[in-house]
This record gives sequence, C-alpha cells and structure tokens, in this order.
Amino acid sequence: MWGHRSICVLILLLQCIVRCEGGFTSSYRRKLTPSLDMPLDSDVFKVPEGFNAPEQVHITQGDLGGRGVIISWITPSEPGSNIVWYGLEKGKYVQCAQGKTLRYKFHNYTSGFIHHCTIKKLKYNTKYYYKLGEGDFAREFWFWTPPSVGPDGAYTFGILGDLGQAFDSNRTLQHYMEGNGQTVLFVGDLSYADNYPYHDNRRWDTWGRFIELSTAYQPWIWAAGDHEVDFEPELGETKPFKPYLSRFYVPYRASNSTSPLWYSIKRASTHIIVLSSYSAYGKYTPQYRWLEIELKKVDRSKTSWLIIVVHSPWYNSNIAHYMEGETMRVQFESWFVAAKVDIVFSGHVHAYERTHRVSNIAYNIVNMDCVPVRNDSAPIYLMIGDGGNAEGLAAEFMEPQPDYSAFREASFGHGVLEIKNRTHAFYSWHRNDDGKSVMADSVWITNQYWK
Amino acid sequence: MWGHRSICVLILLLQCIVRCEGGFTSSYRRKLTPSLDMPLDSDVFKVPEGFNAPEQVHITQGDLGGRGVIISWITPSEPGSNIVWYGLEKGKYVQCAQGKTLRYKFHNYTSGFIHHCTIKKLKYNTKYYYKLGEGDFAREFWFWTPPSVGPDGAYTFGILGDLGQAFDSNRTLQHYMEGNGQTVLFVGDLSYADNYPYHDNRRWDTWGRFIELSTAYQPWIWAAGDHEVDFEPELGETKPFKPYLSRFYVPYRASNSTSPLWYSIKRASTHIIVLSSYSAYGKYTPQYRWLEIELKKVDRSKTSWLIIVVHSPWYNSNIAHYMEGETMRVQFESWFVAAKVDIVFSGHVHAYERTHRVSNIAYNIVNMDCVPVRNDSAPIYLMIGDGGNAEGLAAEFMEPQPDYSAFREASFGHGVLEIKNRTHAFYSWHRNDDGKSVMADSVWITNQYWK
Repeated sequence: MWGHRSICVLILLLQCIVRCEGGFTSSYRRKLTPSLDMPLDSDVFKVPEGFNAPEQVHITQGDLGGRGVIISWITPSEPGSNIVWYGLEKGKYVQCAQGKTLRYKFHNYTSGFIHHCTIKKLKYNTKYYYKLGEGDFAREFWFWTPPSVGPDGAYTFGILGDLGQAFDSNRTLQHYMEGNGQTVLFVGDLSYADNYPYHDNRRWDTWGRFIELSTAYQPWIWAAGDHEVDFEPELGETKPFKPYLSRFYVPYRASNSTSPLWYSIKRASTHIIVLSSYSAYGKYTPQYRWLEIELKKVDRSKTSWLIIVVHSPWYNSNIAHYMEGETMRVQFESWFVAAKVDIVFSGHVHAYERTHRVSNIAYNIVNMDCVPVRNDSAPIYLMIGDGGNAEGLAAEFMEPQPDYSAFREASFGHGVLEIKNRTHAFYSWHRNDDGKSVMADSVWITNQYWK
Repeated sequence: MWGHRSICVLILLLQCIVRCEGGFTSSYRRKLTPSLDMPLDSDVFKVPEGFNAPEQVHITQGDLGGRGVIISWITPSEPGSNIVWYGLEKGKYVQCAQGKTLRYKFHNYTSGFIHHCTIKKLKYNTKYYYKLGEGDFAREFWFWTPPSVGPDGAYTFGILGDLGQAFDSNRTLQHYMEGNGQTVLFVGDLSYADNYPYHDNRRWDTWGRFIELSTAYQPWIWAAGDHEVDFEPELGETKPFKPYLSRFYVPYRASNSTSPLWYSIKRASTHIIVLSSYSAYGKYTPQYRWLEIELKKVDRSKTSWLIIVVHSPWYNSNIAHYMEGETMRVQFESWFVAAKVDIVFSGHVHAYERTHRVSNIAYNIVNMDCVPVRNDSAPIYLMIGDGGNAEGLAAEFMEPQPDYSAFREASFGHGVLEIKNRTHAFYSWHRNDDGKSVMADSVWITNQYWK
C-alpha cells in the first residue's frame, strides 16, 4: 500500500521532528584509529628556508574595530629585524611598523626571538601585503581587513578548537581552508605541547609552523584553554600561561581589559567577547568587573551579533569534562540571557555538540528550579572541541540525551558561521569523515536581538 | 493548672527543639546607630613614640607545623633595622634573624618600609620575647608558640572577620582580647581602606596600628577578602591584592602553594586550609591543583581537626551577598564532604550565621537534586563577617529561614573555637551587645573523623 518513496518521506519527516524538537545523537562513527601526532619531520612542520628566516607567522585583530592587525613571528637564531613592511601591492611595501621582541624560558627550553608588531589605521575591506625578515630570506604574505563595523556586515567565521598537531588536526585545518572562512574563532587548546615530557616547548614551535598556512593570511582570534595553563611547579614553572602569553598577543587593552586572557573585539557585524575559563571570575575579580562593564557597552545597533568564545563549555552532555564549566555558568549565565547573547562557542570536549536555546538561571538554593529550560533570550551553545588532537575523541555521551542538547556527535571537525545580515546567519559543522569534509549539522540562526 | 515554672520549662523545651532540629533566627536587635570609622586621631591609631619606631607589628605562623613565626612591621621614615632579636627571657635577646624590606606604591601613596622576618625552629609551647627597632625607640613584644602537632592538642582560636576600623571594630577586638584565644583565624576583609577615595592606603597604616595590641602578641592567620583585591584600573592599579600581599606575609611555600592567597598550616591538633574566593579555582588552575593534593595530605591521626578558612560563604541565608559563594561551593563542596572537613569559617556577610551539617552535591543538571540535605560527613559552616566595619550590619535575612540554617543573627561579634581533644570542641559566638560581650550562640562540635 505504501510505496518506498512514501516511507522515505515519512522517515525524513520523523527525523526532522526529532531533530527540530528534541535532541539528535548522530550514529556516525568514524573509524576508531589511534589519534597520533604528526612526527617532527612532517612537511607541515618544515622550517622555512634560509638563515633565521621568520617562521610561525600568525596574525590576529590588533584593535577594537578591525582596522588594526597584530603580526607575530619568530626568528629562531638571532633577533633579526622586528619591522613589518606592508602596502596595498605585492612587492611594494611603502609603510612599515616596528614591533617588540621577547624570549622566554620554560624549564630547559629557551624560545626563539618572538616578535609582535601591531599595524593600525588600515582601510576596511582591503587586501594588504606584508613582508617580514631581511634580504634573501624575507617572506611575504597578505591578509584582508574586514568590512567596517556595522549591523549588516556579512562575514564568515571558522570555528576551530582543541587542534593539536595530530594527523587529524591537519585534516581539520585543511578542511577549514577549503571553505570560505575569513577569520577563525579559536576556542582554546592550541599546541598540546604540555602533554610532552617537560611540556616540550619545541612542540609550540612545530605548531606555530603547522598553522602558518592559515594564520599568516587571516586573523585567528584566540581564547586560552587548559592546555595553555602550563603551570608546573615541579618544573619550577609557576606562572600560568607563560608560553601562550609570550607567543600569542591579543588587543586586550583596546577593550579596557587588564589581561590578554579576556577581551573583546568588534568585527564587521559582530561583537566578540573572549573569556578565560582558567582565570578568576568570581564577583569583585578583574574578569568579572570587566565583563560587567563590557556587556553594557554592547550596542546591537552597530554590532548586531553578540558572540562569546570561552574554552570550557557551560552545556555539554558528553561524559568527558561533564559539568566542568558549571561554576562559570552559575556565575555569568544570567548576564548572557539578559544581554541576549546569540552564540557561545566552546571547545574542551573532544566531540561536537549543539544545544537548543536554554537557560538555567532560576535556582536559588531552596526552590528546586535547577533544570535547563527553553528560553528564546538564551544563547545557543556550540561545542567544537574536536579539532583533532592526539588525546583522541570523547566518544561517550550521557544517556538519555538531555533536553537541552539538540545535536551531538563524537567526530573531529570544525564549524563555520556565515553571518548574512543583522537577522540571519547560517551555521554549519563539518565532520572529518575519515578524511573527507562533510557538513553533518547545520542550522539557520536568527539573531535574538533583531528577530 | 499549669504553674508559671512549668510553662517556662515548656517554652525552654520548645526553644530547644526549634534550635536543635530546625533553624533559629535571633530576635536580638542592637541599637541601630551608624557604624562610623574611628577618626584618624583616635588613640588606637597612635603612632608609637620615637623617630622611625617600628609600628603595625603583626605576627603569623611562619612554617608548616608551628615552630616558625613571621614577624612583620613597618618603619615609617627610613628603612631602619630589619633584624628581629628574640629569646626566652624578656630583655635577653640571644638570637636574631634578618628579614626582608620592601615598599610599594598605590596610586598617589607610597608605603613606609615594610619588614618581614621569619624566625624558625622555635620550641613548642614556649613563650618567646622579641625586640624590633634600634636604640631608644626599640620595642619589645612576646608570643607563645603552640603545642606540638598532635591529635589531642587543646587549643583556642578566635575567629574574626570583616573587621575594619570603626568604633564597633574596636569593641569586637576588645571583646576578643578579653577571652582566652591563642590565635586568630581571620576570615578576610581587613582594613576597608579601599572604601576611601583612591583606596587611601593610609587607612592600611591606621589599621595596622589598631590591631597591633593583639597581632604583635599572637598569630593571626590571614585569608584575603574582597576588600583586599584593590583592583582599580582607573587609578592605574591593575595588580590585584597589592597592598595586602605587601603587608601580610604568610608561609605559603611551606605547604607547597605557589601563592600566598591559598595555603595551609598545622597548629596543635588542627590542619587549617586557607582558600581564596577571589582567585581562580576552576579545574586545572593553580589553586584547584594545590587543594586537590593538599586534601590528600591531611592526616587526621596527627591533625584531628580539619578547618577551612575562606572569605565568601558557601551557605548563607542573608539577603546580602546571597549565593556569592555559590561557584566555589559547586567546585569544591564534594571534596570537603569526602574529606570530612569539620568546619568552614567564612566572613563577607556582616552578620552571624551557623548552619547544620549539610551538603548539596548530588546535582547533575538533569536530576533536580539541588537542595541542601543533612549530611554527617559535611562541615558546619560558620559565617562570622560581623567584626564591625563602617559598612554596617547586613540586617535582612531570607524568609523563611532555610533548613540548612541553624542560627542567625544580625549583630557584630566574634567567634571562639576551643578544641578540647580529638573528638570535642566547644564553639561559641559572642555578640557585641551594645558594647558588652554576650555569648549568644554556642555548640559542642563533634569531630567528624574521630566521632
């Protein structure tokens, strides 16, 4: 009586209902092979040719509104030049800026000469070329500045996290670069150097060379994860975040932050707030006080999209790291709902998960109101901690899937957020399907302020 | 039919049932007068006579087990000597130790010369005399070392918090000194200098002179409160805790801590852990990692009593600061229950409250188990943030009194913990009854490990 076609339609319809109204746990399982780091002699780690040639080139936004860029690189053997030459035509570098140079020690490791140079007052929406280093071994790159800050600026962000330097990391990066992402929101856990004996900081250098293919050409917006803490009293290393803060500069002062671990930028139509899961955030602390003021500064008529980037997720139904973000959720969630934050991007859990718009802010110790409920003013939480590091996947989810969870899958992958205008954005997650990039989850996101 | 006497007995019995089984909200109301700071020319702030005479003398434990003392003082005009002379007889100072000297700046203030000197390897249970300064203006003091570390050592602690330098602060300090306290556990919020324009650090100096009457003669064990944060970017002051950390040294390295904001000591029969409400305590952070190891080190066969000191309370039914300690509770409460912590002392709320032994550690986001329940393994929470500062009392409690709350009263006062042996301690709270000290709450505490 029922044809094959009708049954298919029915199944699709049922799937849709499940996916739209409840939660969906993907049954996809990639081949479970050990997730190995690429060996030190891999091509992706290759030192550029020439004595003291600039390496590990990475750029990030260098001011509040997108007209500045921080260019960072390392010269391995001697300080070399800390000048960036730049201009609008390849080979014609009419402007220059001077940076700062530093080194750091970590246990028995001494870094190369790390250079950070901020160039400012660039034109919006313009391609710039830049040159680092001297003589025959100078190297040239380019980047695009974003459109000017405004509510309808279309812009595409990639979202990467927990990347490491495994074979899967390389696939994720390649897949991201095949797309049209203009800037990466990096949700923390960069090199995983701390997993090596003595936190072998040479793995920070290999990582810097590995990501250069993207980071030299487009800004990556950095948030710190637990693998950036590098606190190891037994090695005499008691200053948290030392390698990370030495290598990755961010424009925190532009947003009146007093620490590079939390700050904000405006980029096209977005106001992006980066928070630190591993710094103090209790009332009266610097991060708390900064965020309290920062949220009041958000002007949705100028930046229509309000996005948070923080490493440890507040909603997560994976067994791994379950409830680790709970204390920060308890501290700040009500502020995010009040501010109608659109999206909170996190990593940490080596799997992918998307929530419905939920909040859990009614609890007062004695009232038993402690369950997440649907809330149109609440953010969507997107956990993209599945860049593909050597620690492998977090394959086990809590059962049954909780109501707050909309989609979850234990695969490596990356996210893409395509902002179309002030009301709509298309978000997708791209699974590493044993080497291929497959769009496995997607959703149109309606802006919570402008809808 | 019922005589007056029977009715009285019945009322007492009913009161007892209420106090033993439920919660008791004291109806006592002290005269509500403004809580004013003592003026700068008050006697208690008097600078000691003589050029550059040592002032603001305070001592604290200087090692892990009680055989060390850190002696701190300030010379106002020039560095002077940083030597402490000490011995077993007054006037006969056969030993000496050299300290460190530092100054700090805060906005437009420059401190005097702050000296910290640790003397070690003292005999237990012994009276020592010590001398600071030079020539005619040298000053002499004394202290008792505690009994050696052991499970049955009797010892009496005072508990003071949120002291400030108001008239009420003076009454509280006087009342404490009338008792038999041997060491103060100070639960944070010391001088309230930050309430003055530009965080007027001269109010740190007046406070140092005010407390000297006690702190020069017995150790005060310090925990930092929110009034120690002194984070004020608008004044160019972005290093949290600068005045506090400059003035108050603690023996944090002895317990392998990497920060003076969290550490432990053993004193007589107690293992005391001091935590920081205003530092990071999330997983992977230094404080978290230290506490995880520290709790495993506790040996109840040597230190039978396990006591926590932390500024912001985890249980509190006052309207003021309600649930401010919630994130730290969520982070650590299960550890405290597992470790059978006896008591958690806090301050912050300018009132007094004692809880039953309760825990709230079953919550897992989806199960609705989020109400405090009686738990014999859980600590008693004692909030003694009522030293008497110029901010006044927190007079309003949540109604009805929640089940976890055993006794509460909005008065100034201080606590006393008299440890008798490994199983029993007598705890009392002493209200400032318009100037008089009145024991208004008391309870025998049975050790949760040894009971």
